[in-house]
Amino acid sequence: MKFSSRLIEEAVEEFAKFPGIGRKSALRHVLFLLKQEIHVTHRFTQALNNLREHIQYCKRCHNVSDEPICEICKNPLRDTSTICVVEQITDLIAIENTHQYNGLFHVLGGVISPIDGISPEKLHINTLIERIKTEPIREVILALNSKMESETTAFYITKKLKDLSIPNLKITTIARGVPIGSELEYTDEVTLGRSILARTIYE
Amino acid sequence: MKFSSRLIEEAVEEFAKFPGIGRKSALRHVLFLLKQEIHVTHRFTQALNNLREHIQYCKRCHNVSDEPICEICKNPLRDTSTICVVEQITDLIAIENTHQYNGLFHVLGGVISPIDGISPEKLHINTLIERIKTEPIREVILALNSKMESETTAFYITKKLKDLSIPNLKITTIARGVPIGSELEYTDEVTLGRSILARTIYE
Repeated sequence: MKFSSRLIEEAVEEFAKFPGIGRKSALRHVLFLLKQEIHVTHRFTQALNNLREHIQYCKRCHNVSDEPICEICKNPLRDTSTICVVEQITDLIAIENTHQYNGLFHVLGGVISPIDGISPEKLHINTLIERIKTEPIREVILALNSKMESETTAFYITKKLKDLSIPNLKITTIARGVPIGSELEYTDEVTLGRSILARTIYE
Repeated sequence: MKFSSRLIEEAVEEFAKFPGIGRKSALRHVLFLLKQEIHVTHRFTQALNNLREHIQYCKRCHNVSDEPICEICKNPLRDTSTICVVEQITDLIAIENTHQYNGLFHVLGGVISPIDGISPEKLHINTLIERIKTEPIREVILALNSKMESETTAFYITKKLKDLSIPNLKITTIARGVPIGSELEYTDEVTLGRSILARTIYE
């Protein structure tokens, strides 16, 4: 796809760098901006520059934050004895949006993946261990994905935590099973198999 | 979906204004920027600001352009006796990308739509008539969509052109029919019906 304008060409090229945006959608977005008043573009670019220039990461849990300590860590109403370990900030947001969890978080920033050159030191695992040592944590929930790298990371963290020999520290993981609303018939075998093995008392 | 950061909230809100981008994709794009070096954000916002501040529209055909007259209109190798009338700049780009057309263009900027308050005066129809009067045009190709408003617009333009009583001015429209590669079985009735009525000599 070629354009007769260098300005459009450059804008499309930059837009197409985003994940899941091809040159065709990029062009659509660019033409959308052209149709709007100029302040729409300025507000958009200002918001992104602002974000990128001023965003901070919580010194305690590595969540994105507007201040050195994030709103979740600062909130006195949260249960400080439970910590939920997630891979990415998006996972934290997803769990927050369920409104079913009131404890703290710890964002690893990824999973151990030797192929991609991500060793445990590149993740926020050391700071997690530090927190478990110094904060009054009684339960660590491992809310990682079910890819192999995630499982390896969960295993690595569990071993590190057990090495601390903290009495009564509970390590749990999120329940796996047939999603609410799905049909058993169409659920993949691994999930269905696990949901039979991990069956719970019907009350 | 709520975020604990006002900066993220604002960036997501601005991103979600684009057509087809919901808050979930918006968040993904915003987090993508956070993971990249700061110059990625700056280059992106700079390209958009540049575009919006410096883009021009060709004074002759209303195509987007970096200069008062666009590259297509300026190109001495193009056939200046044929003009292809399109609704939007995206249609012009789509036709250019076929490499099957070497004439000039005229971008209407939309179609007549009384419901949306778009009267013929709000479109670039007058400048089209002016061009037909003053330029050595021998054929006008109407490459509009097949919505009702587009058909009305095509009809309106045809009437205006006929009123000029220019001898030997050919008015044509793009061929409608079964798309190359589609199966007759799954082609909609209207298209298939038209393709029978407008059948061409098999050579």
